[in-house]
This record gives sequence, structure tokens and C-alpha cells, in this order.
Amino acid sequence: MITLYTWSTPNGRKISILLEELGLPYEVRPVNIGKDEQFDPAFLAIAPNNKIPAIVDHDAEGGPLSLFESGAILTYLADKTGRFLAPSGPARWRTLEWLFWQVGGLGPMLGQLGYFAGRAPEKLPLAIGRFSDEARRLLGVMETRLAASPYLGGEDYTIADIASYAWTLGASTLLRKAAPEIWGDLPAVERWLATLGERPAVQRGMAVPAV
Amino acid sequence: MITLYTWSTPNGRKISILLEELGLPYEVRPVNIGKDEQFDPAFLAIAPNNKIPAIVDHDAEGGPLSLFESGAILTYLADKTGRFLAPSGPARWRTLEWLFWQVGGLGPMLGQLGYFAGRAPEKLPLAIGRFSDEARRLLGVMETRLAASPYLGGEDYTIADIASYAWTLGASTLLRKAAPEIWGDLPAVERWLATLGERPAVQRGMAVPAV
Repeated sequence: MITLYTWSTPNGRKISILLEELGLPYEVRPVNIGKDEQFDPAFLAIAPNNKIPAIVDHDAEGGPLSLFESGAILTYLADKTGRFLAPSGPARWRTLEWLFWQVGGLGPMLGQLGYFAGRAPEKLPLAIGRFSDEARRLLGVMETRLAASPYLGGEDYTIADIASYAWTLGASTLLRKAAPEIWGDLPAVERWLATLGERPAVQRGMAVPAV
Repeated sequence: MITLYTWSTPNGRKISILLEELGLPYEVRPVNIGKDEQFDPAFLAIAPNNKIPAIVDHDAEGGPLSLFESGAILTYLADKTGRFLAPSGPARWRTLEWLFWQVGGLGPMLGQLGYFAGRAPEKLPLAIGRFSDEARRLLGVMETRLAASPYLGGEDYTIADIASYAWTLGASTLLRKAAPEIWGDLPAVERWLATLGERPAVQRGMAVPAV
């Protein structure tokens, strides 16, 4: 059994999507970040960065294993099961480079754009422009990649796609309405979003937590 | 032989430090981002995100392998050589969770603080405050971890430490002078910086590229 500490955010949904794809039994512990539940001492013990998602794998080799950081959790579960990440060779490294690209680039930059263009108490053109430019650049990098191969890691659907799905879907929903000049024309990204969106496990994972 | 495309940035230095620790033969190709050399078509072919660092391992199994994203490169080289990352078990996952923490948190947030507090054409208190708060929070997370264990991954020096070193050293240098209230009191982080800074391979890696 795996315990998943999560909330209704793109980073949380990476893990529920993968768990649904794998068909592993798991229980969900919602951590309501709107109520600052991520600062509870019990959660801090397994997630020292005070952020969801985190897991505890009660059946890990050698005893229960807690893990934080969505990229590490995706890699752990994929390697544990031998699915959605090749065990070796170029296919493994193509997947991991695009996984790190999402974790270090697409996620943080779309996150900052969401803050400065949306929730910030002041609208700052310099900051909005900076993160709009970077979002457009990153989405362009993704378009080039997905125009050349069906998935981010290459021929196969992997954890690199799972990592980027909820972030890109959110950007698509918000930007096409509020800032179509940032989204622009991304047919390969839209084809990839539609392909992933049809997967039942993706649909189930996007509905977690059910609160 | 490994070809390393790099520049004098914290992300570039992660890879030169690890290559020096491993004693692997490598040649350096400086990519001067001040002259936009990262947009050269020849570089784009191996680094589709237009960022350093990237490598080509000419001796990879199955033929030359190009790789981008510093976190993926660190993991690849560590797994290739069986050093600075345990092959399995809890020690491997502790290292990878802190590696992803650096790539997705410490790096991007210190990077944005450096921009808004330093290079930005306007000083925006909201943006500077946002990234100062997040830098202080992340450095506090690191302090708590390094007060409890000698290295980020636990008992051993790993790629998680190598990933965080140049970023944290830069923050230490800049913040203690310009914003001591952000750096605050971080004795465990300072002990860890001093320990790593004494390693000859770290010193050699920090001097790459020699231009």
C-alpha cells in the first residue's frame, strides 16, 4: 500500500496519474494547502520542504520509505514497477532529461506566470512580461519536440509526459482565453494533450483528491 | 571521451565538478551565453532547450549519447560510473529527492531573486520580496537537513550536494553582503559549504570553463 499526500495541483496530479496508470493500491491523504495543512508537524516529518506531493511506500524493500519531490516520486514508482521509464539506454535518458526540464523549467516558470498575471496584489508589467516570454519559449521548445516525436521521451508514453500534462493543460486553459498571444499556435502540443486526455488513468488521476 | 558544453554558471559547474570528482576525461566547449552562443544551430541539435550544460558521451553503450538538463546529466554520469549515487535502496532515493529539490526549487528561486534584486531594469518590491521569502525558506529547509545529516542525501557526499553547491555558494557570497537578513544564521549550511569547498575536485570544477 502507498499513502499519497496530495492536493488539487499540477504537481499533486502527476503522482495520482501515475498511480492510476500503474494500478497500484493507494490511499489519498488530502493536504489542504488553502488551510496551510502542509505545515503540520506530521506532514513535515515526511516532506521536509513542506510541499505536496509526498508518498510513503509501506511495502518498500527494507521497510517503509517516505519520499518527497514529484520528480523523485515519479522516478521511484516507475523504476519500482518497470513501467513508463526504460530501465537503461538512450530511452531512459531522453525521458529523464525531459522530466528534469519540466521540474526545473516548465513548472516553475508557469507557476510564476500564474502568480504575477493572476493572484499577485499588483500587476507588474516587467514580471508578467518576463514570465510570459519564458512560458512562450518553453511551450515552443515543447512544440518542436512533439512535432518530431509522439511523446516527450520519444516513441513511448513515459513519466516525462505525465509530469508535464497537468501543467500544460492548465496553461492551455488559461492562456488560450486570457493571453492567446502567449499560447500562439501549438498543434503538436494540442495533439499530445488530446491523446493523453483520452487515457482513463489520466482522467482518474486528474480527479484526485476527490474533495 | 565526454564533450561538455558549459559556461561559468552554477548549472554549468555542477557537471564540471562531477566530471572532476569522477576523473573522467572530458573536453570543454565554452558556450558564451553573454554572446547568445546558446542559440547556435549546432548547439540546439544537442540542447533543444537552448541552455547549458549539455554533454555528448562518445563512449556510451550503443553509440554517442547527447544529453541536456543538469539533473539528468548528473544522474547519468553517477549511474554510468556507480559513484556519488547509490544504485538502489533508500540512499538512492534520498539523494534523488534532494537533487530534484535543487532543480525545481533552490535553483529557479535563487535565479529569480538574482534577476529581480540585481539585473532587473526596475526594482519591484513585490517581486523582490516574493523571491527573498522563498530563498530564505529554502535555505532554512537546507539548514534543517544539514543540521541532522552531514550531506543532503544523508551520510555520503552525492550528486545532490554537487547540484546545490555553486548555487548556495553564490547565495552566500551575495546575500551575506547585500541582504544579511535573508541569509540569516545558517551554521550547518556554512559547515557544508566549507567541507565541499576544500575538495580539490570541487575547486577544479568551479574553475571551468577557463575563459
